[in-house]
Amino acid sequence: MYAVKSTLPDEDLRVVAGALQGALVDLVDLSLVAKQTHWNIVGPRFRSIHLQLDEVVDTARQYSDTVAERASALGVPPDGRVGTVAATTGISTVAEGWQRDTDAVGAMVDSLSGIVGRMRDRMKAAGKADPVTEDIFISLTGELEKHHWMFQAENGS
Amino acid sequence: MYAVKSTLPDEDLRVVAGALQGALVDLVDLSLVAKQTHWNIVGPRFRSIHLQLDEVVDTARQYSDTVAERASALGVPPDGRVGTVAATTGISTVAEGWQRDTDAVGAMVDSLSGIVGRMRDRMKAAGKADPVTEDIFISLTGELEKHHWMFQAENGS
Amino acid sequence: MYAVKSTLPDEDLRVVAGALQGALVDLVDLSLVAKQTHWNIVGPRFRSIHLQLDEVVDTARQYSDTVAERASALGVPPDGRVGTVAATTGISTVAEGWQRDTDAVGAMVDSLSGIVGRMRDRMKAAGKADPVTEDIFISLTGELEKHHWMFQAENGS
Amino acid sequence: MYAVKSTLPDEDLRVVAGALQGALVDLVDLSLVAKQTHWNIVGPRFRSIHLQLDEVVDTARQYSDTVAERASALGVPPDGRVGTVAATTGISTVAEGWQRDTDAVGAMVDSLSGIVGRMRDRMKAAGKADPVTEDIFISLTGELEKHHWMFQAENGS
Amino acid sequence: MYAVKSTLPDEDLRVVAGALQGALVDLVDLSLVAKQTHWNIVGPRFRSIHLQLDEVVDTARQYSDTVAERASALGVPPDGRVGTVAATTGISTVAEGWQRDTDAVGAMVDSLSGIVGRMRDRMKAAGKADPVTEDIFISLTGELEKHHWMFQAENGS
Amino acid sequence: MYAVKSTLPDEDLRVVAGALQGALVDLVDLSLVAKQTHWNIVGPRFRSIHLQLDEVVDTARQYSDTVAERASALGVPPDGRVGTVAATTGISTVAEGWQRDTDAVGAMVDSLSGIVGRMRDRMKAAGKADPVTEDIFISLTGELEKHHWMFQAENGS
Amino acid sequence: MYAVKSTLPDEDLRVVAGALQGALVDLVDLSLVAKQTHWNIVGPRFRSIHLQLDEVVDTARQYSDTVAERASALGVPPDGRVGTVAATTGISTVAEGWQRDTDAVGAMVDSLSGIVGRMRDRMKAAGKADPVTEDIFISLTGELEKHHWMFQAENGS
Amino acid sequence: MYAVKSTLPDEDLRVVAGALQGALVDLVDLSLVAKQTHWNIVGPRFRSIHLQLDEVVDTARQYSDTVAERASALGVPPDGRVGTVAATTGISTVAEGWQRDTDAVGAMVDSLSGIVGRMRDRMKAAGKADPVTEDIFISLTGELEKHHWMFQAENGS
Amino acid sequence: MYAVKSTLPDEDLRVVAGALQGALVDLVDLSLVAKQTHWNIVGPRFRSIHLQLDEVVDTARQYSDTVAERASALGVPPDGRVGTVAATTGISTVAEGWQRDTDAVGAMVDSLSGIVGRMRDRMKAAGKADPVTEDIFISLTGELEKHHWMFQAENGS
Amino acid sequence: MYAVKSTLPDEDLRVVAGALQGALVDLVDLSLVAKQTHWNIVGPRFRSIHLQLDEVVDTARQYSDTVAERASALGVPPDGRVGTVAATTGISTVAEGWQRDTDAVGAMVDSLSGIVGRMRDRMKAAGKADPVTEDIFISLTGELEKHHWMFQAENGS
Amino acid sequence: MYAVKSTLPDEDLRVVAGALQGALVDLVDLSLVAKQTHWNIVGPRFRSIHLQLDEVVDTARQYSDTVAERASALGVPPDGRVGTVAATTGISTVAEGWQRDTDAVGAMVDSLSGIVGRMRDRMKAAGKADPVTEDIFISLTGELEKHHWMFQAENGS
Amino acid sequence: MYAVKSTLPDEDLRVVAGALQGALVDLVDLSLVAKQTHWNIVGPRFRSIHLQLDEVVDTARQYSDTVAERASALGVPPDGRVGTVAATTGISTVAEGWQRDTDAVGAMVDSLSGIVGRMRDRMKAAGKADPVTEDIFISLTGELEKHHWMFQAENGS
Repeated sequence: MYAVKSTLPDEDLRVVAGALQGALVDLVDLSLVAKQTHWNIVGPRFRSIHLQLDEVVDTARQYSDTVAERASALGVPPDGRVGTVAATTGISTVAEGWQRDTDAVGAMVDSLSGIVGRMRDRMKAAGKADPVTEDIFISLTGELEKHHWMFQAENGS
Repeated sequence: MYAVKSTLPDEDLRVVAGALQGALVDLVDLSLVAKQTHWNIVGPRFRSIHLQLDEVVDTARQYSDTVAERASALGVPPDGRVGTVAATTGISTVAEGWQRDTDAVGAMVDSLSGIVGRMRDRMKAAGKADPVTEDIFISLTGELEKHHWMFQAENGS
Repeated sequence: MYAVKSTLPDEDLRVVAGALQGALVDLVDLSLVAKQTHWNIVGPRFRSIHLQLDEVVDTARQYSDTVAERASALGVPPDGRVGTVAATTGISTVAEGWQRDTDAVGAMVDSLSGIVGRMRDRMKAAGKADPVTEDIFISLTGELEKHHWMFQAENGS
Repeated sequence: MYAVKSTLPDEDLRVVAGALQGALVDLVDLSLVAKQTHWNIVGPRFRSIHLQLDEVVDTARQYSDTVAERASALGVPPDGRVGTVAATTGISTVAEGWQRDTDAVGAMVDSLSGIVGRMRDRMKAAGKADPVTEDIFISLTGELEKHHWMFQAENGS
Repeated sequence: MYAVKSTLPDEDLRVVAGALQGALVDLVDLSLVAKQTHWNIVGPRFRSIHLQLDEVVDTARQYSDTVAERASALGVPPDGRVGTVAATTGISTVAEGWQRDTDAVGAMVDSLSGIVGRMRDRMKAAGKADPVTEDIFISLTGELEKHHWMFQAENGS
Repeated sequence: MYAVKSTLPDEDLRVVAGALQGALVDLVDLSLVAKQTHWNIVGPRFRSIHLQLDEVVDTARQYSDTVAERASALGVPPDGRVGTVAATTGISTVAEGWQRDTDAVGAMVDSLSGIVGRMRDRMKAAGKADPVTEDIFISLTGELEKHHWMFQAENGS
Repeated sequence: MYAVKSTLPDEDLRVVAGALQGALVDLVDLSLVAKQTHWNIVGPRFRSIHLQLDEVVDTARQYSDTVAERASALGVPPDGRVGTVAATTGISTVAEGWQRDTDAVGAMVDSLSGIVGRMRDRMKAAGKADPVTEDIFISLTGELEKHHWMFQAENGS
Repeated sequence: MYAVKSTLPDEDLRVVAGALQGALVDLVDLSLVAKQTHWNIVGPRFRSIHLQLDEVVDTARQYSDTVAERASALGVPPDGRVGTVAATTGISTVAEGWQRDTDAVGAMVDSLSGIVGRMRDRMKAAGKADPVTEDIFISLTGELEKHHWMFQAENGS
Repeated sequence: MYAVKSTLPDEDLRVVAGALQGALVDLVDLSLVAKQTHWNIVGPRFRSIHLQLDEVVDTARQYSDTVAERASALGVPPDGRVGTVAATTGISTVAEGWQRDTDAVGAMVDSLSGIVGRMRDRMKAAGKADPVTEDIFISLTGELEKHHWMFQAENGS
Repeated sequence: MYAVKSTLPDEDLRVVAGALQGALVDLVDLSLVAKQTHWNIVGPRFRSIHLQLDEVVDTARQYSDTVAERASALGVPPDGRVGTVAATTGISTVAEGWQRDTDAVGAMVDSLSGIVGRMRDRMKAAGKADPVTEDIFISLTGELEKHHWMFQAENGS
Repeated sequence: MYAVKSTLPDEDLRVVAGALQGALVDLVDLSLVAKQTHWNIVGPRFRSIHLQLDEVVDTARQYSDTVAERASALGVPPDGRVGTVAATTGISTVAEGWQRDTDAVGAMVDSLSGIVGRMRDRMKAAGKADPVTEDIFISLTGELEKHHWMFQAENGS
Repeated sequence: MYAVKSTLPDEDLRVVAGALQGALVDLVDLSLVAKQTHWNIVGPRFRSIHLQLDEVVDTARQYSDTVAERASALGVPPDGRVGTVAATTGISTVAEGWQRDTDAVGAMVDSLSGIVGRMRDRMKAAGKADPVTEDIFISLTGELEKHHWMFQAENGS
């Protein structure tokens, strides 16, 4: 049946494929978590954080596409189905219902902190096997760390 | 604690809230299903269907936001978390891995057909309780039926 | 052979299909009538009405596409062929050759008045069978009544 | 003298005309109230609410035009003169001078709540007489309820 | 309580504040008068004047914002509430109902002529106290005199 | 009564007028035929040809305007009324109902081939009488031959 | 000294150079005449003709650049100085001061009629010597004849 | 006959009208001089100065419109006819034929220097009579002095 | 060596040159101070003030260019080098490291207040010598006073 | 096998096909030559000519597409392969390595001069056989002669 | 003579220069190969692949510029002349004349596969000598592998 | 007090923080140096270099923001205050007053050469500690080396 002939040796491909699949799951869930908070946030910073969260959604959606198509380009079918994401995501479930703005910001800091840690591991793993994939993780990690700073700064004092 | 005072009587609100939550789950999953197929499709119509699926993603993302914010506007916190979507979606799981273009088109016809049926039920239910929500479902159903036709026409002969 | 499975019961579909086909013919002919006048108008309001008529053309072309694709989406092949339009249009033939601006405005008022009447009938008929189609007729009627007012105001005194 | 021949029976027209005139007055005053607050707001949410209020102004200005031109299209001259608005508005007078941000948000919630109530009445009244006008009120009510939620969420905790 | 410390001496501030408040009232009412005429005009120049009036609305809305925010910048809360405008406007009430195009143009010439006269007085008064405010009045007067010419030219012969 | 004084001698004008009227009829009908097919096409190339047909519609609409206004500019009132087009078009009637994509492409090749032949005759006729009109036919023929090639290439093998 | 080596034989170049210089003078003066009328027009069609005249200015300015740079490209320095234009223009002097709209339209018809005549002569002359220059005159003549028609239609009845 | 009632006393109007007419002539001729040089310049800075000259043309065309419409707004018909400009311009005639780039830059410095001097006189004269006109001259002089500097810097060393 | 011949007498030029150089230093430092705060701000208004500060940067950068090029246009070389700015700026040094949002807003109010005071002095000084430079200071002071108000309003209560 | 049925007689087609193929080769090589110089130019006019060369590249790329697709539209497969271009180009090889700006301009004048000569021959040949192709060559020759002038003017003195 | 002083040691520079020159040749030829196929493709996927190939052309043209200017920036004159490309390209010659769509897709897969292999070698070689050049190869390889996947997916089944 | 928890170990963070602070100082000063030269340059290449320098300003401003926000994202407050920049910049002071174009280009080559050298050191240092920061330095160095080449090419011969 159909297969893309990969330009990577099998072992390298296995490592890179795992890193890409992990990143895809994190990014799809991040987009859903940020939208969930965008809709349920309450408090004096409502409008400000409501808008900021949509910038996280933009990052997550754009890079989930980049990461998934990178997997396809290497001959590995990506899996971004809801069941897969629900079963394997590394992000903690957001609380149900309305969220106070301070809590929402704190939860975003925690989610982003976790993802950044996992992305740095993927960045290292991929770097040995495929610089093209590594470069995607480098840009993505930079974007996520920027969001991470901004939410920390919001709750700083 | 915080509550939006709804402009609808309690019973009407209960009906509308249920319809909106159901629609939200369908739309979030539709966006994930269409993206999954966008990444995994294979065959002589690859480019054409690959692009067409992103138009479905646009519809699904735009209306998931509209529907969720309509719930918020009525004082009902929407739930678009991955666990909720995975547990309550009405769309069948897409097969894993590469998908032949003809199969992908057929699966989209089935998914859209199911959603349209459920949306028409929600349209009727909401219409009795809240014309504003009903109007969102009417526009959305029109969009979904247009996609439904186009995928049928693709596989027609 | 190919068929779109309609989401409407047969009887409802029959009514809606008739309304859509009637609207399509009216809109295609309206676009031709307004262009014909756009090219042949003469008099001190030449430029003003020449431009206003192109706005009618825009409305007519945009909604003819919407209406025809709505029929397709319901599984009914639309018929916008020139022979069909010539044979079944409800709009009176425009006079041949140059038209004085006052006459042109008067003729547009008459054409629009007739179409609005027929659209209101279609709006009612469709409303019982399919709210999605009804909603298209509602928006369209609103647009046509706005043009109707503006041409009346032009010839008012 | 000049008259637009209405496509509605006299009794229906009377009801619709009243609803449109009432909506016009509410919307003109809402645009002035939101601008007044935009200029006079003070406090730690100054910039955020200052910007949010201009989005209310956009909604109010856009729909006041739509509503007034709908009246004209039905042959009823709309009245949006300052004296008429001052004399018949249903919105409470805003306090003079600088306004604290929390107070400003609270006042917007009250104003919007009142308008939404009146619009829902107009939506019902018009619905029996003219679906085109009803459709304008439905969209408008949806927009106003969205603003209503956002200001409530701002002051929620 | 809150106060912006003004960069102007008290006496100068008093003069400038009066001029700005007067200009604000004129501009808010001008925007309402021009819209009223935009909706109610009738006659062979309907489309042409209908569009021209919206350019007056643009000028009036843009400068009412500039003038009100200039007051705020000087520490003087502006008052653009409907009751204040109705009570203190210098523009004559527009006639009720449909307006013939020639009458509408004549009325605009009169309204603009009056405003220009008052703006020239404000320009002189402000010039002695605050060149920044004077500069706003100079630009605004230039814009208003341009509209004034164009409506005169329309009714000239 | 009104007449544009033509810059062409009578005999030349007669020839050019005939060519322009013939071209106008062909182009109006081409726009209707291409739209008809755009709505009714079915098969694995649905999306691709559906989009390609709208580019033919764009060419046909743009040049029908150019050609008709060229006639007006020469003092000859153009006739693009539906009855005239139906009675005098050189394009064969499209079959009713859904069209298979291969058939649709074949029909477009035939229609375009016929029009190109007639346009080359008009180009020659006009060239002797009026280089300005000739130049319009040259550009138009180039556009039509490009569409002609693309549909042939689609069905080529 | 500097000279562009022309790709045309001397005799052909002499003819083409003369035609281009004549066209340049006509176009520079046309741009000034249309602006003069744009500023001085008075009457019930003021706004409509005021705008239409700026479209003539656009044509005249754009083609004066094209024509002058064509001369340069052939190695012939173009002369668009005010003294040259004043001394050699073929357009009659516009009357001083305010112009009634009907008179202004009539004067534009006369000016355009004269220019079109001269351009047709240049078109013929150039056609024998240089098809590139001829093609510029063909497009330009088409534009001018379109303006010519529109001003005639304005004063037609 | 038609007259705009001026908001200025007669004596002030006389002064302002003279200044505006003088500025109009200077600006129309500047636009022609800069275009003439744009077409005829030769030398190693050809492209750079060719582009820079079109920025002068933009300034000259934009302000000639502003200045002429200011005259109209004050009730004084402006005169920008070619004969008037040729007879009353203060700019020296540009040499015929190709111009070396250094010479062209030098000539632009001289032309701009002269215009700036005359504009400063007009600025002073108008300032006593009409601050609105003075403000136009101030902006215009700023623009011209910027061009003046840039051409001096070009030829500096 | 190179010199721009100034259009101002020597004494006037000396005054204007000093004012422009002082303004340049203030504006370059303001752009650096606002960026420093943009990067280091912390607290619940982080995002809101972070964005607002970039609007101050835009004003400062745009006007530093305008002011420096005005000096060049008058023949006076502007000095915006870092050493010059550090040695002659009138703005107090911002504290090192992270800044709480309330402190940051307070510091901006102080910096802007100081600059506005100095700009008003420059405005007066320049006004006697050169209205063109004065006009730049007037616009700039208006912009700065608007920022000044907004930061005061942020910290008001 | 596949063939586009040409609308031209065989002999005409042969002539036109040869002209198009020759033009295609010239244009592909011109785009490569201009890019080569764009990268390797050195000297005081570096930036100016570097930018000007990219405008030549734009012309060459745009028309190579037009010319090749014209061949396809006539049923003649165009050949723009690197081997074909290298073997049949009429442009002299550019020197290797850095190029002084004066030399680069001189070389562009020579290349353009040669291409213009060949294009004029093709224009004549095609004109007898196919006015549509001739019209493409006329526009293209106009563009090339404009570039030819500008590079001559650059090196003129 | 002229030389850019390179920031790299001689040996590193030699390696990087070779990699850049090789990449330049591959990219120029890829742009020509993709255009050749864009013009000559035939079959049921004509329009889809015709458009897809222009996206390859965009990638190839954009990166050939980046790669060549990187060489220049390092002081190494790039060589993109047609003779050099024809003599040293690593891409196989495309067959002459019309190409069936399936064959065209297969040929693109082969060409891209070869280029990706060579780019990965260049990426490795450059990475030891110059991370800036390596980064360009990483981005470029990512783009090429994406095209490679898409063409494989097209022909997959 | 507030601190961003860094994702880097302390020692790595110290190295990266130093590199980022050094880069920030270089970039802020580069933006001031390039603007200073933009305002003071004189000579036959004035316009060309004046524009080129603003492209350097764009690079410097954009990357100073990127670099400073990268420091913030890592928990290190950046210092871009004027005193810090003046005290620690590695760029030589630009001469006071007007600068000849050749000297200005030479000075830019020297400044850019120095910065590139320091950036390459930072690139190496950061690469061991943080690939995200390294990637920013790689892109930035590429941009700076491109400017470096272009200014060298300007003064080359």
